[in-house]
Amino acid sequence: MIPLGGIGEIGKNMTVIEFENDIIVIDAGMMFPREEMLGVDYVIADTAYLQKNAHKIRGIFFTHGHEDHIGGVPYVLQTLNVPLYGSTLTMALIEAKLAEHPEIEADIHVVKNGDKIKAGVFTVEYIHVSHSIDDAMALAITTPIGLLVHTGDFKIDLTPACGEVMELSRFAELGKKGVLALMSDSTNAERPGFTMSESQVGETFVNYFRQAKGRIVVASFASNVHRIQQVIDVARIFNRKICLSGRSMIKIVNVTRELGYLNVDDDMFVSFDELKKLRDNQIVILTTGSQGETMSGLVRMATGQHAKLNVKEGDLVIISASPIPGNERYVSDVINMLYRKGASVINDAVDMVHVSGHACEEELKLMLSLVKPKFFIPVHGEYRHLYKHAALAEKMGLKKKNIFIPEIGSVIELNRKVGVQKDTVQSGSVLIDGLGVGDVGNVVLRDRKQLSSDGLFIIVVTTSSETGELLSAPDIVSRGFVYMKESEDLLEHARDLVIDIVDHCNANGLSDWSTLKSSIKKEISNYLYDMTQRSPMILPIIIEV
Amino acid sequence: MIPLGGIGEIGKNMTVIEFENDIIVIDAGMMFPREEMLGVDYVIADTAYLQKNAHKIRGIFFTHGHEDHIGGVPYVLQTLNVPLYGSTLTMALIEAKLAEHPEIEADIHVVKNGDKIKAGVFTVEYIHVSHSIDDAMALAITTPIGLLVHTGDFKIDLTPACGEVMELSRFAELGKKGVLALMSDSTNAERPGFTMSESQVGETFVNYFRQAKGRIVVASFASNVHRIQQVIDVARIFNRKICLSGRSMIKIVNVTRELGYLNVDDDMFVSFDELKKLRDNQIVILTTGSQGETMSGLVRMATGQHAKLNVKEGDLVIISASPIPGNERYVSDVINMLYRKGASVINDAVDMVHVSGHACEEELKLMLSLVKPKFFIPVHGEYRHLYKHAALAEKMGLKKKNIFIPEIGSVIELNRKVGVQKDTVQSGSVLIDGLGVGDVGNVVLRDRKQLSSDGLFIIVVTTSSETGELLSAPDIVSRGFVYMKESEDLLEHARDLVIDIVDHCNANGLSDWSTLKSSIKKEISNYLYDMTQRSPMILPIIIEV
Repeated sequence: MIPLGGIGEIGKNMTVIEFENDIIVIDAGMMFPREEMLGVDYVIADTAYLQKNAHKIRGIFFTHGHEDHIGGVPYVLQTLNVPLYGSTLTMALIEAKLAEHPEIEADIHVVKNGDKIKAGVFTVEYIHVSHSIDDAMALAITTPIGLLVHTGDFKIDLTPACGEVMELSRFAELGKKGVLALMSDSTNAERPGFTMSESQVGETFVNYFRQAKGRIVVASFASNVHRIQQVIDVARIFNRKICLSGRSMIKIVNVTRELGYLNVDDDMFVSFDELKKLRDNQIVILTTGSQGETMSGLVRMATGQHAKLNVKEGDLVIISASPIPGNERYVSDVINMLYRKGASVINDAVDMVHVSGHACEEELKLMLSLVKPKFFIPVHGEYRHLYKHAALAEKMGLKKKNIFIPEIGSVIELNRKVGVQKDTVQSGSVLIDGLGVGDVGNVVLRDRKQLSSDGLFIIVVTTSSETGELLSAPDIVSRGFVYMKESEDLLEHARDLVIDIVDHCNANGLSDWSTLKSSIKKEISNYLYDMTQRSPMILPIIIEV
Repeated sequence: MIPLGGIGEIGKNMTVIEFENDIIVIDAGMMFPREEMLGVDYVIADTAYLQKNAHKIRGIFFTHGHEDHIGGVPYVLQTLNVPLYGSTLTMALIEAKLAEHPEIEADIHVVKNGDKIKAGVFTVEYIHVSHSIDDAMALAITTPIGLLVHTGDFKIDLTPACGEVMELSRFAELGKKGVLALMSDSTNAERPGFTMSESQVGETFVNYFRQAKGRIVVASFASNVHRIQQVIDVARIFNRKICLSGRSMIKIVNVTRELGYLNVDDDMFVSFDELKKLRDNQIVILTTGSQGETMSGLVRMATGQHAKLNVKEGDLVIISASPIPGNERYVSDVINMLYRKGASVINDAVDMVHVSGHACEEELKLMLSLVKPKFFIPVHGEYRHLYKHAALAEKMGLKKKNIFIPEIGSVIELNRKVGVQKDTVQSGSVLIDGLGVGDVGNVVLRDRKQLSSDGLFIIVVTTSSETGELLSAPDIVSRGFVYMKESEDLLEHARDLVIDIVDHCNANGLSDWSTLKSSIKKEISNYLYDMTQRSPMILPIIIEV
């Protein structure tokens, strides 16, 4: 077992299961860039190991349709042509994604709960689990040396808002048969107790819908189909119509309605224009923006940038999600804007308008006790989560030597008796910026970092190719450093300094470009730092004529 | 009353109280820059209004020594020479800050609980309150038309870790005499109930210190003197010595010990080198870094960058603070690093190792009910906090027309009977970057933003001043855009394009600089976007020889 992503981080999940000449891959996700990855659009796992072993790969098996599990597909398929397996909704979301890459021909296989797929020496069984997206699956993988169970992302919801309770009995059966290793979701391993049921959120909605006298705006993740279903159900009870806002919300509702995942009458949805015919207490606006994303429906409504909708006095806004770490500031900004517009705001800090999609401690323990694995590998989490999950397994009686906290790229090798965690394969992050896949790296990011904090200072020196003397006064261009108009003295002095440096170099026979450039760089950098305590990027350009 | 900062934000508190020819100022704080203020070091309030009315100002009255209340002092004093008033610790911290600006001569007045200072038509009385820094004060300001009460930052701690319980009776007396207006801390107005007492934290410390077998590392805000005192007290009980780490921690401990704010024997503190002589269970390391700041003691210890200390297996790390909004990601990174080093980590999500310094709903209601103001102005908070605090006051019977949610720069004008919120004075944010105060503005930040996300692309064109023809191939320099080595085709093609543009301009008599520059900018920008979907800053530079 070789994790290529999703370990020590939340995002870009990808796991390799290898036995001799066969490989299967679980998920191919993407991750949003960290703050310091300036200008990067997203991040996927380095798949060099898969490319090297392409001939062994029998397929990619997806657990569910969240971006951190499927977002890397268009990039992975550019170099690997392998079959893709997943549930109906998962594959529909992958196809929607691939529609933007018509050059890719994907070999798509839709599977359902209970299906068993042969893939080389492996047989992969799909088992339904509860999660914050519909059609989420765990995998039970039969290998020549024993059974592996990968939970995917899951929670144990005994009163799900829609569909069946997850198949706990199947996990019990597998446990009874004997499971060699369990890989289990660690996201909430730090949280005690049980994750609340999704249906709890519906009950909270009922309370707010009953009281609300004006419009109700619900912001949620578009992929949270059960949440959307609950908004629809409660809106129906209180005779409100729903208007959708936000590109991904509209897209997902269309896809899931077509597939029959949403139970809704046609006349429940109204367009922006039809809203005018309704009273405020007949309206629900269902929108993206629960993370305070700049271009989302909610933020555009709150800032007055939405062409058709505006938040107004008397609106009740329910933010039905919790902020992903790093987004707290943006969400808080939106809440402030909403209050300024006269709306009331309910978020998960105020009431139960959101529940997590991941299992807490007691559920993780239940999973461990049903599956009774010999080896345990916590997955899907930052180090702290993996560590806590490992500690939980140890507390439940697993031997410490049979628990492995994985690292990206490290090989966990198991046989029927013992396991070892070994040296690593090539792995890491590939940054995607615009059309570029992997062409932005440390040097480019370091430059962007310097440019972002102090700007740049360009000095163009035109010299005679014969004498090395200046042909004109040096040109200076700066951006993101100081207001040029108010800093004329500074620029004038810098220009004089450059003239002195060129003269000095000429006089001392040091007029080769690289000496000249590095002299200018050093002296101007010192001068500017002394005057401003800033370190713009200094770019000397020498033109010989 | 004119707020110049601290409204609609947490930070850079500054409030103007004006009556005819007299002004007093409450606090002069700074704020840390928001993420989008690239390269900015900190932010202070625009004090143009004060400069215009400098002759009226009778003094700046500080409520306590946190940076968001005193951090702007060195900048404000550069243009205003006015007396400064505050409690012993507050003024000691201001003096420590001014020590780095020897050019400033400050007129410093130390006051204590109960002191009344005459300042023009005003009399300012200092009243002790509880907060997360020692020596915090509320102000009762007698004006010709009535009494104003400004709470400063406060909580009602009935069992404080050190010192006296705040003087609730004085607030009751003032309320009985009649208070025209109350300005009250809104930070925790969204939180129900009562803020836990500081002494609760000490009890939690005792539990962990009792169990701990290895070293204990406590990370806290350096300014939280009562927290530091509690660490000292618990360390004493369990026979542990304390080693200090982090520049501001060492500085504050020195200042507060000198002033007698810390009750500690000399032999409680040990140096890094003396640690070697102690067993692990005799050691406490008290450090900065509770916010995951890069250069802080804790982060350097966790990353192996600390010259003398390293976190190791068996350490217990207590993060005795909660993350300031926006810092969650950094704190989480540190927790992951600590677990990787084999330490156990306790933070405020796990146990009561931190309590807030600000009053929750019930305390805010208590303050309102004691002071019984005619007018109410919630201060110190984002809009959501001010809004909730205003709603609280209304619920307690204040008339809606007598409650004002302030805005930075808006004038709240009161007489004995009525109040109005009027048009605004000049106000806003002044950005400080290195030595520059206010020389970084929207243009510079916009440039930094563009440079940070896609880098830059410089094109130097050398033309003949006579014919306008190119004298050599255009020079191209790019940074933060793509790896230049791997993008030679792209650069080559861009160079050809520039040659075409220059030729075309020459052929059509369009060879003036601005036309040539804008043609290059537009065409190269389009070309690069088509090829990469990135928009680097394009800088054409034309040299005529």
